[in-house]
Amino acid sequence: MLTVNWKPNKKSNISLYKQIVYYIKNKIATGAWPVNSKLPSQRAMAQAFQVNRSTLITALDELIADGFLKSKVGSGLWVINNSWSLLSSENCVNWNSHIDQGVIRSNFNTIQEINRLEINPSLIRLGTGELSPDFYPEKEMNIIFSKLSGSIASMGYEEPKGSLFLRQQISGYLKTVGINTSPASIMIVSGALQALQLTCFGLLRKGTTVFLEKPSYLFSLRLFQSMKMHFSGLSLDSEGIQLAAVSDLCMNKNAAVLYTIPCFHNPTGILMTEKRRNDLIALCQYERLPIIEDDVYRELWLDFPPPPALKAMDKEGLVLYLGSLSKTLSPGLRIGWIVGPEQVIEQLADIKMQTDYGASSLSQWVAAEWLSNGLYQEYLDNVRVQLRIRRNAVCKTLKTYFSDIATWNIPQGGFYIWLSFNYPISLKQLFKICLEQGLLINCGNLYDHLSSQHLRISYAYASITDLSEGLYRLSILARTLLAVSVKAK
Amino acid sequence: MLTVNWKPNKKSNISLYKQIVYYIKNKIATGAWPVNSKLPSQRAMAQAFQVNRSTLITALDELIADGFLKSKVGSGLWVINNSWSLLSSENCVNWNSHIDQGVIRSNFNTIQEINRLEINPSLIRLGTGELSPDFYPEKEMNIIFSKLSGSIASMGYEEPKGSLFLRQQISGYLKTVGINTSPASIMIVSGALQALQLTCFGLLRKGTTVFLEKPSYLFSLRLFQSMKMHFSGLSLDSEGIQLAAVSDLCMNKNAAVLYTIPCFHNPTGILMTEKRRNDLIALCQYERLPIIEDDVYRELWLDFPPPPALKAMDKEGLVLYLGSLSKTLSPGLRIGWIVGPEQVIEQLADIKMQTDYGASSLSQWVAAEWLSNGLYQEYLDNVRVQLRIRRNAVCKTLKTYFSDIATWNIPQGGFYIWLSFNYPISLKQLFKICLEQGLLINCGNLYDHLSSQHLRISYAYASITDLSEGLYRLSILARTLLAVSVKAK
Repeated sequence: MLTVNWKPNKKSNISLYKQIVYYIKNKIATGAWPVNSKLPSQRAMAQAFQVNRSTLITALDELIADGFLKSKVGSGLWVINNSWSLLSSENCVNWNSHIDQGVIRSNFNTIQEINRLEINPSLIRLGTGELSPDFYPEKEMNIIFSKLSGSIASMGYEEPKGSLFLRQQISGYLKTVGINTSPASIMIVSGALQALQLTCFGLLRKGTTVFLEKPSYLFSLRLFQSMKMHFSGLSLDSEGIQLAAVSDLCMNKNAAVLYTIPCFHNPTGILMTEKRRNDLIALCQYERLPIIEDDVYRELWLDFPPPPALKAMDKEGLVLYLGSLSKTLSPGLRIGWIVGPEQVIEQLADIKMQTDYGASSLSQWVAAEWLSNGLYQEYLDNVRVQLRIRRNAVCKTLKTYFSDIATWNIPQGGFYIWLSFNYPISLKQLFKICLEQGLLINCGNLYDHLSSQHLRISYAYASITDLSEGLYRLSILARTLLAVSVKAK
Repeated sequence: MLTVNWKPNKKSNISLYKQIVYYIKNKIATGAWPVNSKLPSQRAMAQAFQVNRSTLITALDELIADGFLKSKVGSGLWVINNSWSLLSSENCVNWNSHIDQGVIRSNFNTIQEINRLEINPSLIRLGTGELSPDFYPEKEMNIIFSKLSGSIASMGYEEPKGSLFLRQQISGYLKTVGINTSPASIMIVSGALQALQLTCFGLLRKGTTVFLEKPSYLFSLRLFQSMKMHFSGLSLDSEGIQLAAVSDLCMNKNAAVLYTIPCFHNPTGILMTEKRRNDLIALCQYERLPIIEDDVYRELWLDFPPPPALKAMDKEGLVLYLGSLSKTLSPGLRIGWIVGPEQVIEQLADIKMQTDYGASSLSQWVAAEWLSNGLYQEYLDNVRVQLRIRRNAVCKTLKTYFSDIATWNIPQGGFYIWLSFNYPISLKQLFKICLEQGLLINCGNLYDHLSSQHLRISYAYASITDLSEGLYRLSILARTLLAVSVKAK
C-alpha cells in the first residue's frame, strides 16, 4: 500500500500543487511508488498532504496529463509510468506503436518470448532457424584463429562498405553462383537482418508497398511495418511466389518493392523454379518494380543446386541481393552482404556508418579467411550431407506421427518444413502446452497473422533424437487440441 | 546526347503513351539515359516516336509525376531518377531529408568525404578521433586469439542483451569506476554509436528535445535530427556544460533528455568537475530530466582520474550510461555497452534483436578476455603514458605555430584540443586547401553549425612527427585565409 508521510511547505514560493506534483513524480521515479501500484484515495491524500481537495486534484490532473498516473473507472488512480518509460510512448518512434490493433504486437511478444526461452538448454527447439552447434567447424575455426594471431597488425574502423579484402572474396564467391559483381557494389553488413534494416530505414519511402510471399519471415519482423510500409502478401504455389496479382496491385501504388526468398523459402521451404524466376524478372522489369532478393539459404541445397539467383538474371540493376554466413556457417560471426547498384550501395554504406560504424573487423577477417580458399565449399559439402540425413529423418518421423492430422512439403534444401494441420487449431494454446512439455515451437501465425493451422518445423537445430522425441510429443498435444476444435464444429 | 531510335507499336493493345512511358522508364532504369541528362526537345521526340505532340505530353507528364523527369524552366526536361533512387525521396524515411535547409546536409557531406578520405594513407589526419594503429596491442591480442583457438565450441546467436560472460566482466569493470550495476542492467552494443541509434529509435519520442553541450559530437550525426528530435545546445565553461538555462527551457518541453560527454568532451576536451556533476544530477532529478551519459573517454585521463560518473551518483535510474572499447582499445572490435534501468535495457535489447541480432560473438569473446583479468588496466596504463607524450608534444607545437592566431585548452585527457582562431575563417576553404596540401582536418562547424573559427585537433591518431609537420603546414594555410578575412574587415 502506498503511503504519504510528507506534506508541502506552505511557506515555500513554489505553489502547493506543484510541490505535490514533484513529490509524487519523485516517488514514481525512485520506484518507491512502482508502476501498476494504486494510489491512496483522494480523501486520504488530501488529508495527509493537508491541502484542499481542489489543490490535490490540480496536482493529480497534471500527473495524469503527463502520463504518470491513470484513472481507472471505479478503481481510483494508478501509477503507470516513470520518466524513461514516459519518453517513449504509443505514438513515438514507431517501435512501440500497436500496429494492426495488436495483432503484430502479440506475435511480436511471442518472438520476444522465444528469444528469451532459447537460452534454456533443456527445451527441445522444434522450429529454430539456425544450424545445430554440432555443425560448428571447430577444427577449421581454430586453424583460422591461430592464423589471425600472426597476421593482424591493427584494428581500426573499416571503410564504409566494409573490408575491401572481404568484399573481394565475396565478389569471387558470388561468381561461383553466377553473380558477376565488383567489390564496389558490395557492402558488408552484420547479417542479412541488418541489410533489411538499412534498406528499410535508408532507402524506402514511408508508405512503400512491399510485395512478398505470404507467409513470410518478414511478417515476423516489425521493422517494415514500424516504418509505415504496407505489406501486400502474395500466395505461394510449388514453384514459388504467384505473380498474377502483381500488375493490378502495382497500378494503385506509388512506391513499391518486392521482397522474396526464392531459395528454400522461410517458412515454407519452397524453392522457386527457374521458369518462375524468369517470369518474375520480366514482370518486375516491365513494372519497374525493384526486388529485394533474400538468398541466405541458397547454399543449403540438399538434392541439386538451385536455379540461378534473380540477381544473376538482372540486367537492369533492379535487384538488391542479400547473402549471409549466418545460416550456413555461424550466426555468431554476424557477417552478411548486400549487393546492388553502386549508387544504392553507397547510400546504404553511408547510413551504416551513421548507425554503427561497420561490422566487427575481427569477424570480417575470419569471414574472408573462410571465403578466400576452398574451405567454405568443403565445409558446405559436409553440411549438406548432415542436413540431408536430418531432413530425411524428420520427414520419416512426420509420416509416422502426423500422417492423419497434417500435411507437409518435403523441402529440397534450407531448414524448414511447413506443417499444415488438417483443421484449425489454437496455436496460442499449443504453444503454451508445448512449453509446459519442454517443447519450443514456431507457430505459423508469426509468418502469416491469419494462419491458424501451421507450424514451422526446422530439422536444422535440435538433435535427431530430440527432434524425433519432440515431434512425437507434439503430435500428441496437437491431437488433444484438434479433438477439441473438431468437436466444437 | 540522348537519342530515340524506336517507335511505339500502333497495333499493340497497350496505348501509345503507355508504351512511350515504358520505353523512357526503361532507358532511365538501365542507365542508358542517366540521371542529370537532358531529353531531346518535345518536337524532336514527337517526330522520332511518330506520335502527336499531345500523346507525347501525356507520357511525359506521367514520367514527371512519377519522379523520373523534371522540367527546368527555359531548359527542357531532365532525367532525375531511376527506380531505386525513386523509392527513396526527400520526404522519405528521414535520412535523406534536408534538415535545416541543408545546413546539416552539407556538414554531413563533409563527414562522408572524411569517411572516404580516411582510407587514403598519404593524408595526415589532424582531427581523427581514434587511437593510432601504433597503440594496437598486437602481442596481447595474439595471445587472446590463440586462447580462443582452443576454447570456442560453437558460435550461435547470443542472448538479446549479449553474452552473459561479457556482461559479468563489464559489471565487474564498472565497479572499479564506482558504478554498481548487475549484468541484467547491461546490454552489449556494436559501439556507443549503436547505443545512441537504439536509444534514438527505440526509446525517444519524436519531437523530444535533446539538451546537449554546444559544440557536441552529436551535432555531427544526423541520427537524432533525422528522427525529428530537437537539439537545444547549452554553452560550456571550463567546468563543463552550463545549467542555468535548463529549468526555463524545460518548462516549455513535453519530452526532453540531456546528452552529455562529461569526460574529455568531444570536441572541446573539457572535463566536467565534480561540483558541476553534483549540480547536474540535482537539477535533472528535480526536473525529472533523463540523462544520456556518453563516457567513452573516461579511461583516457592523463593527469589524474576523473570524478565519478554521473551514473555513479544516480540513485533514481535517470542515467543511461554508454561505454566502449572503441576509443581505448580497438574500434574494429565494435564492442560497447549501455547501462540503465533494467526495463529500459530490456526494451533496447528487444530493438537490437530486431535490428541486427546482436554484436559479433567473436568480438564479445575477445572483449571479455580483455576485461576478465588485469590486462585491460595494464594496457590502459601504457596508453596513458603514450597519449600524454603526444598531448604534450602537440601543445608545444601549437604554442610555436599558433600563439598569435589562435587559442586553445590543454586537455586533461581524451583526444581533443579545440583550437579557436582569433578571427572567423572560411572553414570550407581551409578544408579544401588543407586537403590539397595532404592534410585532413575536422572543422568546428561539424560540431556546431555556427562555428566559423574552430578546429578539432586530435593528438591521438597521426604520428608525432606528422602532427608536428601537419600543424606547421596548417598554421601557414590558416594564416593566408585569416589575412584575407582580416583584410575584408
